[in-house]
Amino acid sequence: MAKLYFRYAAMNAGKSTALLQAAYNYEERGMAVVLLTAELDHRDGVGQIASRLGLSREAVTFNASHSLAERIAFAQQERWIAKLACVLIDEAQFLTSAQVQELHRWAHAYDTPVMCYGLRSDFQGNAFAGAATLLVLADDIEEMKTICECGKKASMNARFSDDGERIREGQQILIGGNTRYRGLCPDCFY
Amino acid sequence: MAKLYFRYAAMNAGKSTALLQAAYNYEERGMAVVLLTAELDHRDGVGQIASRLGLSREAVTFNASHSLAERIAFAQQERWIAKLACVLIDEAQFLTSAQVQELHRWAHAYDTPVMCYGLRSDFQGNAFAGAATLLVLADDIEEMKTICECGKKASMNARFSDDGERIREGQQILIGGNTRYRGLCPDCFY
Amino acid sequence: MAKLYFRYAAMNAGKSTALLQAAYNYEERGMAVVLLTAELDHRDGVGQIASRLGLSREAVTFNASHSLAERIAFAQQERWIAKLACVLIDEAQFLTSAQVQELHRWAHAYDTPVMCYGLRSDFQGNAFAGAATLLVLADDIEEMKTICECGKKASMNARFSDDGERIREGQQILIGGNTRYRGLCPDCFY
Amino acid sequence: MAKLYFRYAAMNAGKSTALLQAAYNYEERGMAVVLLTAELDHRDGVGQIASRLGLSREAVTFNASHSLAERIAFAQQERWIAKLACVLIDEAQFLTSAQVQELHRWAHAYDTPVMCYGLRSDFQGNAFAGAATLLVLADDIEEMKTICECGKKASMNARFSDDGERIREGQQILIGGNTRYRGLCPDCFY
Repeated sequence: MAKLYFRYAAMNAGKSTALLQAAYNYEERGMAVVLLTAELDHRDGVGQIASRLGLSREAVTFNASHSLAERIAFAQQERWIAKLACVLIDEAQFLTSAQVQELHRWAHAYDTPVMCYGLRSDFQGNAFAGAATLLVLADDIEEMKTICECGKKASMNARFSDDGERIREGQQILIGGNTRYRGLCPDCFY
Repeated sequence: MAKLYFRYAAMNAGKSTALLQAAYNYEERGMAVVLLTAELDHRDGVGQIASRLGLSREAVTFNASHSLAERIAFAQQERWIAKLACVLIDEAQFLTSAQVQELHRWAHAYDTPVMCYGLRSDFQGNAFAGAATLLVLADDIEEMKTICECGKKASMNARFSDDGERIREGQQILIGGNTRYRGLCPDCFY
Repeated sequence: MAKLYFRYAAMNAGKSTALLQAAYNYEERGMAVVLLTAELDHRDGVGQIASRLGLSREAVTFNASHSLAERIAFAQQERWIAKLACVLIDEAQFLTSAQVQELHRWAHAYDTPVMCYGLRSDFQGNAFAGAATLLVLADDIEEMKTICECGKKASMNARFSDDGERIREGQQILIGGNTRYRGLCPDCFY
Repeated sequence: MAKLYFRYAAMNAGKSTALLQAAYNYEERGMAVVLLTAELDHRDGVGQIASRLGLSREAVTFNASHSLAERIAFAQQERWIAKLACVLIDEAQFLTSAQVQELHRWAHAYDTPVMCYGLRSDFQGNAFAGAATLLVLADDIEEMKTICECGKKASMNARFSDDGERIREGQQILIGGNTRYRGLCPDCFY
């Protein structure tokens, strides 16, 4: 039985590296995968999954209006994949709740694993819609651990201005690099 | 650093047994705990945490209008506890989002672990408010595994009528025993 | 695919309670299980799995000279079980390495889960033979957490004399109750 | 309280990538780490930790005659590290039992985390000495999952000759790349 997986972490834990490693592991064994990422993440150009360690690969993008089943089928056709072994999705916090429900049914209907990587909560400690639904429906949830500057485990995400000041109000989505977000432990977050 | 824990499972996995065992483990080492449970769970009388294995203990109840910090303080006074080692909460899916946020701050402010046990999703696969917020904020999340009738892992909860028919529409909360809910795997659920 | 599971913990974490809960969960769904425990554990009479919470059940015993496949078959016949859903083994640290290897093959050959509960290390921090081999071969390993008297997680086991003095030399196996062993965190252990 | 961690996996799961990501995460937050690897692993030159994704870094080597405390101190001096945040060890299956015991005490005495990455079992399903002791003493054990060619989880390691034939007899240690070892699930392994 294939599963819907959610690998969540604070900012800068190495989610994209882990996704690229999983893709490599499948392909090394001769199994085909498709990669998807959120359209709104323009850090590395639309359609790139890039790790801070310097690795990157192209990915099909999704936005809130897409059917994920259609995006998977599109990505599969584009790469001429006859038999799909796994679907890997980066920035999965930006999925809608309906898209996560669709993926949960899809993984079980097609008996094909779907591995989602993403953040849990925004800079105010509130859930991203996609993450919230993944946490409720995923068959397998695992935290990817990283550290706060104080040495404890980071589980929250804080937003900072360009001059390093903590920002507590504003829109949920404001994509940027390391300068704007940092993973913190709850003690430092509060 | 104390943590907010969430131990989630489908119906009938043994959540209350695990909570009572954790309480026993603390008390056996001379450490004091308080137990809370949802007021609306009348299965075993208001203020009882009972396991299907036959064990039960009294607990202070909470409802949606309570401050959890106040309920913890109340429970502590009632049992003349000078130094509190751990807070144990059953039926934690019935906490409000605000109550979970309060507990997260409380655990870190008082450096005292809070262990919550509860369901993830209702009979339609939607999140309970308390579970959704626990999944986003808890410092440590662990699934308690149980089995579906088909032998696979149960992660969903289905509602059945007294004569065994599956019910797909209705209110989220309708407390009852084994006759009304059963844990199922996603394949059997869908 | 069925798995060989190992649930390990320090003394007094609630291993037997968890085993009895798992047995209950299977049987409640109409599935049959067999229970095994070590012959040398006389705490509760030969052939009893008993939890400190007051629960207990009979179990078939094993010793170092047994074939576990034969003990499982014996236990199955004794309870007239046509179709076996799960094998549950307490005090699994007392299995020999060869018995664990046999169980690993057995679980995969018969596609039937085998769940082993036991300690990891003895009072000197050395492995029990059965635990060492389970840690190397089990398909799924999970720690059952309990607390040290200092509040941190207990992962080591210390032996004490009747008058409470720490004992650091002696035989590996010396069965007794709470008075003789206590789970400690590594800081307190060293 | 710092911990001794063990991250184990079958061949080609991405252990070295994960180690390099952890090092990056610490250093990005301004914290210093030291990297160690086994002297006998000549795949990438003595003193290199290299991932199949193309990343690599220099590391201090250890062999069976070393004190690990001394190797850590040596590595720290070499890189002029005043305050050490974490020790990262690759190919940890090649540590001796005594070296793992030393690392466990060291992590707790110096309150500094030690993260070990390695295999669990050799091509005959027997434990590596270092892995066996890590599994017994590590404060935190986590499996890094990868897949067998059949699509199930790989947990065993098989040795193959250059022309692809399975080898079942021989020495435990025979270092090579992908051509000689492959991770398999227990069903394919047996």
